[in-house]
Amino acid sequence: MTATIFVLNGPNLNMLGLREPHIYGADTLADIEQRVKAHGVGLGLAVDFRQSNHEGVLVDWVQEARDRARGIVINPAAYTHTSVALHDALKASDLPVIEVHLSNVHAREEFRHRSFVSPIARGIVIGFGAQGYELALDGISRMISPPSAQRP
Amino acid sequence: MTATIFVLNGPNLNMLGLREPHIYGADTLADIEQRVKAHGVGLGLAVDFRQSNHEGVLVDWVQEARDRARGIVINPAAYTHTSVALHDALKASDLPVIEVHLSNVHAREEFRHRSFVSPIARGIVIGFGAQGYELALDGISRMISPPSAQRP
Amino acid sequence: MTATIFVLNGPNLNMLGLREPHIYGADTLADIEQRVKAHGVGLGLAVDFRQSNHEGVLVDWVQEARDRARGIVINPAAYTHTSVALHDALKASDLPVIEVHLSNVHAREEFRHRSFVSPIARGIVIGFGAQGYELALDGISRMISPPSAQRP
Amino acid sequence: MTATIFVLNGPNLNMLGLREPHIYGADTLADIEQRVKAHGVGLGLAVDFRQSNHEGVLVDWVQEARDRARGIVINPAAYTHTSVALHDALKASDLPVIEVHLSNVHAREEFRHRSFVSPIARGIVIGFGAQGYELALDGISRMISPPSAQRP
Amino acid sequence: MTATIFVLNGPNLNMLGLREPHIYGADTLADIEQRVKAHGVGLGLAVDFRQSNHEGVLVDWVQEARDRARGIVINPAAYTHTSVALHDALKASDLPVIEVHLSNVHAREEFRHRSFVSPIARGIVIGFGAQGYELALDGISRMISPPSAQRP
Amino acid sequence: MTATIFVLNGPNLNMLGLREPHIYGADTLADIEQRVKAHGVGLGLAVDFRQSNHEGVLVDWVQEARDRARGIVINPAAYTHTSVALHDALKASDLPVIEVHLSNVHAREEFRHRSFVSPIARGIVIGFGAQGYELALDGISRMISPPSAQRP
Amino acid sequence: MTATIFVLNGPNLNMLGLREPHIYGADTLADIEQRVKAHGVGLGLAVDFRQSNHEGVLVDWVQEARDRARGIVINPAAYTHTSVALHDALKASDLPVIEVHLSNVHAREEFRHRSFVSPIARGIVIGFGAQGYELALDGISRMISPPSAQRP
Amino acid sequence: MTATIFVLNGPNLNMLGLREPHIYGADTLADIEQRVKAHGVGLGLAVDFRQSNHEGVLVDWVQEARDRARGIVINPAAYTHTSVALHDALKASDLPVIEVHLSNVHAREEFRHRSFVSPIARGIVIGFGAQGYELALDGISRMISPPSAQRP
Amino acid sequence: MTATIFVLNGPNLNMLGLREPHIYGADTLADIEQRVKAHGVGLGLAVDFRQSNHEGVLVDWVQEARDRARGIVINPAAYTHTSVALHDALKASDLPVIEVHLSNVHAREEFRHRSFVSPIARGIVIGFGAQGYELALDGISRMISPPSAQRP
Amino acid sequence: MTATIFVLNGPNLNMLGLREPHIYGADTLADIEQRVKAHGVGLGLAVDFRQSNHEGVLVDWVQEARDRARGIVINPAAYTHTSVALHDALKASDLPVIEVHLSNVHAREEFRHRSFVSPIARGIVIGFGAQGYELALDGISRMISPPSAQRP
Amino acid sequence: MTATIFVLNGPNLNMLGLREPHIYGADTLADIEQRVKAHGVGLGLAVDFRQSNHEGVLVDWVQEARDRARGIVINPAAYTHTSVALHDALKASDLPVIEVHLSNVHAREEFRHRSFVSPIARGIVIGFGAQGYELALDGISRMISPPSAQRP
Amino acid sequence: MTATIFVLNGPNLNMLGLREPHIYGADTLADIEQRVKAHGVGLGLAVDFRQSNHEGVLVDWVQEARDRARGIVINPAAYTHTSVALHDALKASDLPVIEVHLSNVHAREEFRHRSFVSPIARGIVIGFGAQGYELALDGISRMISPPSAQRP
Repeated sequence: MTATIFVLNGPNLNMLGLREPHIYGADTLADIEQRVKAHGVGLGLAVDFRQSNHEGVLVDWVQEARDRARGIVINPAAYTHTSVALHDALKASDLPVIEVHLSNVHAREEFRHRSFVSPIARGIVIGFGAQGYELALDGISRMISPPSAQRP
Repeated sequence: MTATIFVLNGPNLNMLGLREPHIYGADTLADIEQRVKAHGVGLGLAVDFRQSNHEGVLVDWVQEARDRARGIVINPAAYTHTSVALHDALKASDLPVIEVHLSNVHAREEFRHRSFVSPIARGIVIGFGAQGYELALDGISRMISPPSAQRP
Repeated sequence: MTATIFVLNGPNLNMLGLREPHIYGADTLADIEQRVKAHGVGLGLAVDFRQSNHEGVLVDWVQEARDRARGIVINPAAYTHTSVALHDALKASDLPVIEVHLSNVHAREEFRHRSFVSPIARGIVIGFGAQGYELALDGISRMISPPSAQRP
Repeated sequence: MTATIFVLNGPNLNMLGLREPHIYGADTLADIEQRVKAHGVGLGLAVDFRQSNHEGVLVDWVQEARDRARGIVINPAAYTHTSVALHDALKASDLPVIEVHLSNVHAREEFRHRSFVSPIARGIVIGFGAQGYELALDGISRMISPPSAQRP
Repeated sequence: MTATIFVLNGPNLNMLGLREPHIYGADTLADIEQRVKAHGVGLGLAVDFRQSNHEGVLVDWVQEARDRARGIVINPAAYTHTSVALHDALKASDLPVIEVHLSNVHAREEFRHRSFVSPIARGIVIGFGAQGYELALDGISRMISPPSAQRP
Repeated sequence: MTATIFVLNGPNLNMLGLREPHIYGADTLADIEQRVKAHGVGLGLAVDFRQSNHEGVLVDWVQEARDRARGIVINPAAYTHTSVALHDALKASDLPVIEVHLSNVHAREEFRHRSFVSPIARGIVIGFGAQGYELALDGISRMISPPSAQRP
Repeated sequence: MTATIFVLNGPNLNMLGLREPHIYGADTLADIEQRVKAHGVGLGLAVDFRQSNHEGVLVDWVQEARDRARGIVINPAAYTHTSVALHDALKASDLPVIEVHLSNVHAREEFRHRSFVSPIARGIVIGFGAQGYELALDGISRMISPPSAQRP
Repeated sequence: MTATIFVLNGPNLNMLGLREPHIYGADTLADIEQRVKAHGVGLGLAVDFRQSNHEGVLVDWVQEARDRARGIVINPAAYTHTSVALHDALKASDLPVIEVHLSNVHAREEFRHRSFVSPIARGIVIGFGAQGYELALDGISRMISPPSAQRP
Repeated sequence: MTATIFVLNGPNLNMLGLREPHIYGADTLADIEQRVKAHGVGLGLAVDFRQSNHEGVLVDWVQEARDRARGIVINPAAYTHTSVALHDALKASDLPVIEVHLSNVHAREEFRHRSFVSPIARGIVIGFGAQGYELALDGISRMISPPSAQRP
Repeated sequence: MTATIFVLNGPNLNMLGLREPHIYGADTLADIEQRVKAHGVGLGLAVDFRQSNHEGVLVDWVQEARDRARGIVINPAAYTHTSVALHDALKASDLPVIEVHLSNVHAREEFRHRSFVSPIARGIVIGFGAQGYELALDGISRMISPPSAQRP
Repeated sequence: MTATIFVLNGPNLNMLGLREPHIYGADTLADIEQRVKAHGVGLGLAVDFRQSNHEGVLVDWVQEARDRARGIVINPAAYTHTSVALHDALKASDLPVIEVHLSNVHAREEFRHRSFVSPIARGIVIGFGAQGYELALDGISRMISPPSAQRP
Repeated sequence: MTATIFVLNGPNLNMLGLREPHIYGADTLADIEQRVKAHGVGLGLAVDFRQSNHEGVLVDWVQEARDRARGIVINPAAYTHTSVALHDALKASDLPVIEVHLSNVHAREEFRHRSFVSPIARGIVIGFGAQGYELALDGISRMISPPSAQRP
């Protein structure tokens, strides 16, 4: 049976491809969604891809994932640095969580160096642009496979 | 006439009884609501019990309380530590506010030691589990009673 | 053709005129909206005046402004001090932004001294009460005028 | 058999009712002792009520409680913020500890925001005035009851 | 009778129009003085416009303003961030004070984020270039008018 | 009638004249007591001069002063830097308090730069050696005199 | 022609599989080297895989990479947090750098939260165990491919 | 022969008696000068009493004191907290220095808690109002007397 | 003649063997006293072994040691981290001081990492359990021996 | 069979006896090695005594100790304060570690107060000069003995 | 034609040779001026050598240098650590700036470790005593020479 | 007889002329060595010029200098900011030390503002490029000359 992975995107990521393309590339979030879903098919994973500017909506979705998904890939964008609520929701989900950032947050402003998500993430992928989602799917795929299936 | 008290619950508290029962106990938020309302009846108080994962919704409710309630009991959960908006709304409500936390936040991570709600709270109850709501109702009951009625 | 300016107001500002009138004056937000719109008419500007208690809704509006407005005047209230999401949205809008505060935030609590909006603002107006919105409109009017039109 | 609870009071609390009655109320510590003992009777608890200005004496009493009491309610007053010795003694007592403060310490000076007692307390009650002791007794009463006895 | 406003300028502002014109514009301080005085005429205000590189001279002028002016507009430049003496002088003047900065100091070095003037300012105008002085005059004009005259 | 002043000395001051005479001088505490009492006679003040190594005893004495003295001169020695309990006791005493230090604590270790006594002191005398007690008596004498008696 | 990638490992990584296998897994560094090289073959990359406990040797190798490699994958282990020399060497190499950590350093001690390598890394992969090296190779493979070859 | 003492006053002290008389009293600086000089006569000291708002002038005077005075009493006012130049000048003067503050600076804003003068002062007198100058003269008088003359 | 060494123990050490034996071992303080005295006999030292929960009593004993002992071994327990009074007393004693901790305080809470005793200690022994007292006696024995006697 | 203990010495300790003999004594490292080995013989321990100025070499040796020694005594000198690599190596060694410092590092510069070795040390000996190595051997001897052999 | 270099000296440097000759040497500022001017002659540079205790005067001179000099050598003394005004003036001068300190400021008090001048200096010379001015002239000489003239 | 000076260069300086020539110039380290040696000849100094990427090797060389050189010129590069070992070695060498940096480290990242070498350096030369070595030689030449030879 196909496992579902939630791929959640935080505030302003719906503007991708529109803002600062010299930094984030010309792909829109719809382009990325298409590629990530295709990549998931190759791994036998169904990808549920969503975006919201609302902290509360992201918390709702993480709670929903508990019953409907086997893992969460999340690019929390600005909420990375301010949301204890996301931290609590992700921790309570009991699912493997991979944190993704398109660009290198450590090379940006001081206030982007702290992440409330990192302490509860199983994996973190930073700076690979849109490809980072695919790397995250690769990683989570192995985490949710039964050990016997991992290296036959 | 019966006074109404708003009992407001912040993000992830709707997961109570599901997540980490060894810490928070097996009661669901519905169980707690039932007991708190029953306890209110004994004190002659009508309890309006709500929960939201959205910071903005909690602010809306606090503003609504101004016209519809005599006091606020609030467990702000994660927003305790990050929400200046709740601080401002509670301060502007001109109502007595009791802050409640189920477990001892001071024994947890550093970032849970700061509360934006405590400076404007009239009372604070920490670490009594679900019973904390009942203690808070006891306290707020006395705060809104006329002095002459307090110790007959 | 008339340029549109978004005038956005953050949490609890809908309580203006009700809370602490000795600090903020007796004007309600509706009173202010009326005067700001009238002032805009004199400058040839259409003012779209909104308020929300929700961080996510404010981010949505800033994104909407990108297509529908020539500039943003924003009083982020409590989100001034906590919202990286607003910072990112305003920066991505590529519009001139003026930050307004009714009272002098620097004479209040320590946690109100940091602004996530100031680093990306073109102008900042603090402590002029409701008149601050009018000063902000004056300023943004000049910023969006063609240089040749500025001082004939 | 009746369980004994130690109710310990730190420095300057013997001046209650004398100093700043507009903040702490007109009750003397003797008034409070009388009410707390009466409240204990209703819960089937014997209250051993003491006060000292000496950090060492408070440590002695906490050690004594180990053999003579089932729980400790403590208002450490100024030693809340400076005494690692009380922290160690309370932790070593293996008894449930409830920390009580009459007024909201978080609304006072910065140096009163840190508590060495909070990390080892099972419950914390702040800002309910003298009623806080009664709420603390209610809470500790349930903590030391056998589970079968809690909700018949 | 015409009210006088002191418009005081701190160190290096006499170099305006000479240094970094891409940031501060090509106007010299003399150009600005001329426009600000003209703007004052429209508001019925006499503008006394001065500049000094000396902290002590600025303090002298603020003291002088007490007897000779109805308000102070000040761009303290570098002394914004280091002068407690200006803070004290302005506070003792018992006059309304408006702080002006040409560019957005919050987008510059860390050490320019602290202002000793802001806590005692009635209004703050940042980032409007030379126009900021005119906005400040608009604001101070209303502050010193009798209430009855404010909204006829 | 003669007014009584409590002159209280904190830990290790009983070793004066024995330890580090090149810093503190060769006078013992008994020598100082004698001179201070003589100086008091000249001012019409009875001096009650005491020393203790115990924080709790000093708190007891401050409480006792409330009924028995018109003012307190205190050299809290090491407790200056650690005792919130003394701070509370002195504040509650409602008496004028003068803080005395023999040597310049600001020229010593970092941890001696903070004083919990200074915020509630009416006067502070630092670095005059044993003469500091006499200066403190001079100061407190004037504070407790009726205004009409101050400059005949 | 085959491109070479340096995969460099810092101090104590030669103990992998020996220390704390419940955290780092049972694979030895030799096992990992074998898999990473095989993975490189699939991507058309030659992997030069090395380990040293010496900061200076790692700096030497990074300098050597400048002439002999197209990219660097580095797990700096403990030197992540202390080595400005590695930072300088990597920055001067003008090669794309991917930083890898086996476990989630953000969930460990405070002093592991700072990385001197992150600010100059093009990509960062944390918490995927030994698989992280393979994800890093995937990422660097795309970075060094000609754009025309990336998505045909 | 009569010894001369420089009594130096920093910025804004020329406004004494005019600003905030409820805090600083109704005496003007001229009143104080008169009393301090009279007090000096009683001690056999000639007092050279000066005030300036200029940091540089105060440094000039301290240097002048080296040749013309036996000691310095200084109320550096705002420069207390910001002037390393005064620190250096006073230290180089090789004269006994007494620091005076009229009110208790430790009970005011955070930025007034640091003094650059205290580390090099021989004595410090805080919070005695204008009387503090007289106490300082008493102290410096004894410091510059020959030991044999001190207690005959 | 036999030299006397004071071995002083701070708060809660009288509970040894009762609290957390898996950390501190099953030995009571009486067991330790017996062994330490026996060890002293072998070194020709008389051990005066004491414990108190009172900071003031410990200060009294340190002062007493000045006349009655040749050295001090002290386990200040909780007062290690808070007592400036002990720091002053030990420094004034002019005796060699050895600081002992049973367990590794650096592996415990942050607030136990600071010691007010360490800066004036001649030697420090941490983490050897009760044996630490014996190592401390060995060390102090050599410190107080005449050099000629040290290595014949 | 004889157990081996590694006694490792960090940078600049090969200069002992040459530099600052008034602080560190006149013994050279060779003198100390000889005495420590002799002391080991008395305890039935073979001492492998080494010194290096290279952080990497020290890490190599700690790894080697894992197979060849029963315990490690280490004086990391300057690397105490900067080496996370040593921290990791010592932790991974699964051997008891005793940290030794000749002089009292807590009485020296601020940057010597932090130790990366202390959190993983079983015992710490500071300030006993060269004798500290012998005390450390005494301690480790008991740690590696079978319990039955410890107190017959 | 001869280029002019301004050599500016900050507060208290006019006391050189008088204060603490064991630190700063016996040369007076006049001695140094003479040698620096002679050294300038050898380099074909006219030296304009000045000193002031006034921050504002130093700012005036830096502004004057813009038109009259080719470079600035400055020993800002105490203003190094406090003057943002000098920072701004030097930056606006568009001239090469060399910062000179006679003694090693990094070996002195903490507050002398920060320099507001260093970030805009082209070169810094510390600790060479009066010779530092000559080294600074050597350096600035090369900076203002045409490249072709630099190494014939 | 000719005195020898060690000129030591830290990590990555062997890449000079290769990396970022727009910042550091096109000279290689070999070019600089040649010029520095020639400059030494003019001063009667033999220059021993070395470079290493290894912290331990630099410490070895500093120790070697003790016997073989009269002074040390060192550009510690990255180890400036992290090496306590170099600090200790240089301090123990008892030789005059000059610290050199090619570019202005104070205008770069925060973590380059701290130097462990500066507190023990006799002189510091920053920002003169390769010429800084020659200025350092000039300075050290005078430091090691007999006073009588300095200004005949």
